[in-house]
Amino acid sequence: MIKALPVFHNNQYNKIIRQATSSCEFSPRKTQTLVPEPTMSSSVGLIIPCKAAVAWEAGKPLVMEQVEVAPPQALEVRIQIKYTSLCHTDLYFWEAKGQTPLFPRIFGHEASGIVESVGEGVNVFQVGDHVLPVFTGECGECRHCKSEESNMCDLLRINTDRGFMLNDGKSRFSIDGQPIHHFLGTSTFSEYTVVHSGSLAKINPLAPLDKVCVLSCGISTGLGSTLNVAKPKQGSTVAIFGLGAVGLAAAEGARIAGASRIIGIDLNPKRFDEAKKFGVTEFLNPKDQDRPIQEVIAEMTDGGVDRSIECTGNINAMISAFECVHDGWGVAVLVGVPNKEAVFMTKPINLLSERTLKGSFFGNYKPRTDLPSVIEMYMNKKLDVDKFITHRVPFSEINKAFDLMLKGEGLRCVIDMEK
Amino acid sequence: MIKALPVFHNNQYNKIIRQATSSCEFSPRKTQTLVPEPTMSSSVGLIIPCKAAVAWEAGKPLVMEQVEVAPPQALEVRIQIKYTSLCHTDLYFWEAKGQTPLFPRIFGHEASGIVESVGEGVNVFQVGDHVLPVFTGECGECRHCKSEESNMCDLLRINTDRGFMLNDGKSRFSIDGQPIHHFLGTSTFSEYTVVHSGSLAKINPLAPLDKVCVLSCGISTGLGSTLNVAKPKQGSTVAIFGLGAVGLAAAEGARIAGASRIIGIDLNPKRFDEAKKFGVTEFLNPKDQDRPIQEVIAEMTDGGVDRSIECTGNINAMISAFECVHDGWGVAVLVGVPNKEAVFMTKPINLLSERTLKGSFFGNYKPRTDLPSVIEMYMNKKLDVDKFITHRVPFSEINKAFDLMLKGEGLRCVIDMEK
Ligand SMILES: NC(=O)c1ccc[n+]([C@@H]2O[C@H](COP(=O)([O-])OP(=O)(O)OC[C@H]3O[C@@H](n4cnc5c(N)ncnc54)[C@H](O)[C@@H]3O)[C@@H](O)[C@H]2O)c1
Ligand SMILES: NC(=O)c1ccc[n+]([C@@H]2O[C@H](COP(=O)([O-])OP(=O)(O)OC[C@H]3O[C@@H](n4cnc5c(N)ncnc54)[C@H](O)[C@@H]3O)[C@@H](O)[C@H]2O)c1
Ligand SMILES: [Zn+2]
Ligand SMILES: [Zn+2]
Ligand SMILES: [Zn+2]
Ligand SMILES: [Zn+2]
Repeated sequence: MIKALPVFHNNQYNKIIRQATSSCEFSPRKTQTLVPEPTMSSSVGLIIPCKAAVAWEAGKPLVMEQVEVAPPQALEVRIQIKYTSLCHTDLYFWEAKGQTPLFPRIFGHEASGIVESVGEGVNVFQVGDHVLPVFTGECGECRHCKSEESNMCDLLRINTDRGFMLNDGKSRFSIDGQPIHHFLGTSTFSEYTVVHSGSLAKINPLAPLDKVCVLSCGISTGLGSTLNVAKPKQGSTVAIFGLGAVGLAAAEGARIAGASRIIGIDLNPKRFDEAKKFGVTEFLNPKDQDRPIQEVIAEMTDGGVDRSIECTGNINAMISAFECVHDGWGVAVLVGVPNKEAVFMTKPINLLSERTLKGSFFGNYKPRTDLPSVIEMYMNKKLDVDKFITHRVPFSEINKAFDLMLKGEGLRCVIDMEK
Repeated sequence: MIKALPVFHNNQYNKIIRQATSSCEFSPRKTQTLVPEPTMSSSVGLIIPCKAAVAWEAGKPLVMEQVEVAPPQALEVRIQIKYTSLCHTDLYFWEAKGQTPLFPRIFGHEASGIVESVGEGVNVFQVGDHVLPVFTGECGECRHCKSEESNMCDLLRINTDRGFMLNDGKSRFSIDGQPIHHFLGTSTFSEYTVVHSGSLAKINPLAPLDKVCVLSCGISTGLGSTLNVAKPKQGSTVAIFGLGAVGLAAAEGARIAGASRIIGIDLNPKRFDEAKKFGVTEFLNPKDQDRPIQEVIAEMTDGGVDRSIECTGNINAMISAFECVHDGWGVAVLVGVPNKEAVFMTKPINLLSERTLKGSFFGNYKPRTDLPSVIEMYMNKKLDVDKFITHRVPFSEINKAFDLMLKGEGLRCVIDMEK
């Protein structure tokens, strides 16, 4: 289903790529001189040596390495990452428990940055543009991109098992000639990264990059899953499973939509205090109950909630989220990324009694088309992003962000690439 | 959740009920005199002895019996059934394989008739009105009836395990004092039956009762599941699982909606010839394939159909119907009544890639509010009902209708109560 893009073919650009020097052993000082101000782009066409946090093995702390970042090929853009944050999806693939292991790899997909240089055929981006890399892209040409209903671009949709760039099936990262795998086409745990131009949203240059970085994945995902998919009406009751950043963004969406009751469900009691700031009105911990949580919710709400949004990745939560919606009109939206072996199971009568089950992907936002409007929601103060950012660490301490997420502490930890 | 109706209480009407004679041993001649022309209603307030086809045991042929039909209580209506047809739901509960057995019972729920008498508090029906009894009702007062989205009335929704009337928890049918269970609140395999007034749709008196009887369940269910729930756009591809009357009515809906391809799937090759008359453009028999039918469909349709509607009751067909829709925008609608033990299973990733799964009940039509408009679709020749009626038998040969359905022959067999 992957169509060749109309104008550009890989071979044409080999020339350009070959201009790049392929040298560069580890040398921090050299990095300093090669990469001055982003707008100057004296690095155009050259390999950039820079710092990246490399995952060499599943579950082992990332290691700060000097990597070489090749120049962007056709339809690619090289960006300087300014801020990146840790999302649970990074953690899952780093742990590689229920997921395909692919190492060494540079993780990271929630980020903000500035265009350093563009590959051949890239017209919509210029050096210096403020951008958010997105783990799923928008080619603009395929059936999905042309459909109003889908954001699952045939060419650039999320592919967690692909560790290389589409253009040539190779990596743009290497250490002493050894290629390092990409992650989600973004690999933002690096000072510089190369992404397909369709996986990049150009944003308002006034938007603060240290904040809006979190809008490139989790927050938009949660927000959109409520506003674009669950669509609760004014006065609805909404259940949110999982009060991480994604779930709380879903709660924020419910608050914006005018829900009258927002019931938050999480196994981690620490989540509850934070959740109040996001409009969550009631809390349930499944561990405190001696029967399925969907029964507790049905009892609290005279038969079930109007809408539920699952943001845990846990299969039991997915089933509960579906079964806790009211018959006749209830809609459940699944957002969490499940373990590969997980199977969703329910009695068909739960469906026949007019419940709807949907999955959402990146909140059904088309990344290039719709992300700028999410940024505007933040700029207009309709959406509060600051409260999602509970921690900040310098890039050198990126493993702390992993520790925090493993301990279930805080929501988003923003990693400052310049510190 | 069952609310008492606002004005009437059971006790008030005991008086009226008591006026009914409780005599009547089997006597066909007496029946003739007691029940003359329907409009005369000399039978008002009296027990009516009449013929009914009684199921004494699971899976055993129905037996023509003389039953006594008590007068309608508060908010009930007694109707003379003119025509009734056999739907698969009757067969399931008669076989009682995956369903709760409840015998002796009078089955039947697809029918047309004429009001013989009304109980206290019934204002919307008059003696002589043409009506369709419906297996699911509309009280007009509950959250579901007040919601635009639901037709699953709290008071009168389908209840396959209830064998009595709501008013007093008793049956209106008896043989020598032995109560006979009701089925779906309709029990139309009887010359006379008593139904709750909320489970009755008043229809255009010009509509031919020998045809529109089939609109009281299967055909409306199939039609509505497409037009009201799946909502295919002009030019869509639609898969229909199960080419019985319900499935072909769903196909008819797809044709009316302007689908470009309608793919019919059935295990019974006999269904295919009939299906062509209903706009089905392609046929698939899962038995002819050496891999899951959803894969075959995905291949035929460049990734999946836009909409699918499952009308089999078979759990494997339900799963295939879901998994054969296109990611990004596909919608699958489940209509078939499953075996009690059946479990719907799928990988959550099938949902996350933006597929929607819904169940529909009676095509999401509100029975009293919406059925008259379905009748008008027939009267305006937008909907062709005649082609669904493949067989007719006199009431005395009702077991032939069961045989035909068991053999998978034809679509609807209409049973003429006066023959
Ligand atoms: N569909 C998409 O496009 C998309 C995009 C981004 C993230 N995600 C997924 O969304 C999910 C949430 O991401 P996050 O960053 O907020 O993660 P997070 O770890 O911050 O939050 C998840 C929360 O779920 C809770 N939880 C786990 N199992 C639970 C259960 N059975 N019942 C109740 N609560 C339970 C945890 O305690 C935790 O608080 C992850 O699965 C992530 O991979 C999906
Ligand atoms: N949801 C509702 O409101 C509602 C209302 C009426 C009927 N129903 C249900 O709809 C279903 C269809 O009713 P009908 O009267 O058309 O029945 P039917 O027996 O006439 O048709 C069912 C068809 O499904 C086919 N089939 C069975 N298993 C299959 C499989 N695995 N794959 C493909 N085809 C398969 C059969 O061969 C048959 O042709 C039944 O389950 C019935 O109980 C539901
Ligand atoms: Zn993410
Ligand atoms: Zn695309
Ligand atoms: Zn039926
Ligand atoms: Zn009601």
